[in-house]
Amino acid sequence: MNESLQVELGARAYPIHIGTGLLAETALYGPHIRGDQLMVVTNERVAPLYLEPVRQALAAYRVQQVILPDGEQFKTLEVWNRIFDALLDARFGRDSTLIALGGGVIGDMAGFAAACYQRGVDFIQVPTTLLAQVDSSVGGKTGINHPAGKNMIGAFHQPRAVVADLDTLDTLPQRELSAGLAEVIKYGLIRDAGFLAWLESHMAELLARDADALAYAIRRSCEIKAEIVAADELESGQRALLNLGHTFGHAIETGVGYGAWLHGEAVGAGLCMAADLSRRLGWLADADLERVRRLVARAGLPIGPPAEMTAGRFLELMVVDKKVQKGQLRLVLLPQLGDALVTDQVDAESLQASLCAHVPV
Amino acid sequence: MNESLQVELGARAYPIHIGTGLLAETALYGPHIRGDQLMVVTNERVAPLYLEPVRQALAAYRVQQVILPDGEQFKTLEVWNRIFDALLDARFGRDSTLIALGGGVIGDMAGFAAACYQRGVDFIQVPTTLLAQVDSSVGGKTGINHPAGKNMIGAFHQPRAVVADLDTLDTLPQRELSAGLAEVIKYGLIRDAGFLAWLESHMAELLARDADALAYAIRRSCEIKAEIVAADELESGQRALLNLGHTFGHAIETGVGYGAWLHGEAVGAGLCMAADLSRRLGWLADADLERVRRLVARAGLPIGPPAEMTAGRFLELMVVDKKVQKGQLRLVLLPQLGDALVTDQVDAESLQASLCAHVPV
Repeated sequence: MNESLQVELGARAYPIHIGTGLLAETALYGPHIRGDQLMVVTNERVAPLYLEPVRQALAAYRVQQVILPDGEQFKTLEVWNRIFDALLDARFGRDSTLIALGGGVIGDMAGFAAACYQRGVDFIQVPTTLLAQVDSSVGGKTGINHPAGKNMIGAFHQPRAVVADLDTLDTLPQRELSAGLAEVIKYGLIRDAGFLAWLESHMAELLARDADALAYAIRRSCEIKAEIVAADELESGQRALLNLGHTFGHAIETGVGYGAWLHGEAVGAGLCMAADLSRRLGWLADADLERVRRLVARAGLPIGPPAEMTAGRFLELMVVDKKVQKGQLRLVLLPQLGDALVTDQVDAESLQASLCAHVPV
Repeated sequence: MNESLQVELGARAYPIHIGTGLLAETALYGPHIRGDQLMVVTNERVAPLYLEPVRQALAAYRVQQVILPDGEQFKTLEVWNRIFDALLDARFGRDSTLIALGGGVIGDMAGFAAACYQRGVDFIQVPTTLLAQVDSSVGGKTGINHPAGKNMIGAFHQPRAVVADLDTLDTLPQRELSAGLAEVIKYGLIRDAGFLAWLESHMAELLARDADALAYAIRRSCEIKAEIVAADELESGQRALLNLGHTFGHAIETGVGYGAWLHGEAVGAGLCMAADLSRRLGWLADADLERVRRLVARAGLPIGPPAEMTAGRFLELMVVDKKVQKGQLRLVLLPQLGDALVTDQVDAESLQASLCAHVPV
């Protein structure tokens, strides 16, 4: 099975290939490689599993590799710099191509290195986690963390192609699978109530890694993301809807220390918090909030933040998030399930109440 | 006196203001500032001289500052990161604006920080050296050095405006004035034989900081740069001509250690090396080469590399420069004075001879 979608971005348009046995498909990479110098950026967990098939598929090129430590806590300036060390050690030029082989952390760091090496070279996303396949590999957001905030240093830099091989999910730890489902649920919540209902009735298959169910969930997620990104590449408008749950989630990730919670876990809790706040504003019904919490919980995700995250700590961290404009916090909320909007009109009292409403996880 | 040019880049078009008393002109900054959060990025030498007038001009905004050490040796990842520390300490959002107040190093680092902070915020160039006023502040090339190569990590990110106040040249050390003249001479060599002749007859005035002569040299340089950048923002073609002398120059800067030679000094030597190689290829006459060397020397600049830069060391460093394509070194050379081209057809023998031809400085 191999399906392809296109992210329609004019001169920067690119395909997303979704299927099985794709890692080894030379023909998927070739059209997107200009020179003959390739740098595979991967991590210590993924390299033993998937580096070799990728290298074999690219045997016609001069391939180098850089293997980084695995985890959100390594998405730092220092680790990022190791990609430049490798590129310069290998004397790679402006027509070299980076291959991001791994999850969201690898994709973000390799993509940001591609954005900045010699002021911009090409890169290809080869996501190996569910989260990266449905979300972070598509759309060109790249970057690294700063101790004071998630993804604070980065660039918009679109990949030349995304190669999402479903086979790589076979080796994914269950916790990572759940993390990816947080973003899948997000797409249903912001854009497609039908897909949300489908997720409710297929969560068991997804958790059991039923191939057809996963393929459908990934394809539908990529379709929604591709459509939103094509309409608003640089997030001047509707692209912000993709951040549902993320302002809360980023605060949790930064607050508990990068790597303690997976990004998808923090987003799962963030989705519930956004739903809770939407209910307090009178938009969602109690039953809607319950549906969101139940689905997130069934995906194996936390439905609220850890106890250490006080309202004060949330506010402190949320004001440095990228959604602040003119000093006003902007949040993505849900007027109804399947429909989202950005608002800076949240009253302090409702926000405070939501931040304090720790539900048992 | 206040003249304005426009860099014609469609939605990213911006003015270059050249004149006296401009630092304190509130009206020059205002139209280019969106939010109310401003971060002045400057260095330890410039801050005592010019930070206060700039702060006063911007008194209506919330202004913070970050003061970096002065010199090319500080154009590093670590020092660059201090800009992010300052931005996040101050809780600056996506609608903040950076003000680069200083020479080329400050402009490159602040511009690159603006390119990457929250994936891109605005910045304004306020160049205080001749080199920055005629060259580095215009055109959107930003970046930092890597130990293995000059400007290897960076981005194209256009400023919203350039404010070049000639008064700031009053405090410029003579060595820095000379360094700036290297880029001025470059414009004559690549584009305007008439301007080159004007420089030959006005070098004494320029070195004596005659206001009219400096104003004319800066304006003509900015005109040429603006025209070339407007035609080829991302250097897919003719913009490469602006790198005349720079592949040699970058090798010298990296080879002797960042900061030992000023960028303009290395470019001065590089211009002479490019002219020497152009003569060996039968393009320039002996007399042309002599004209170039004499003018560079009169500007107070070296006309060749230091003795420690052997041909082998040059080649080693030049292959990592950004002008390499498909493993082939590309050089900007001079078919005649006032006209430049990019070629990858230089025979190894001529190149070797040029790299070995150390002339007494």
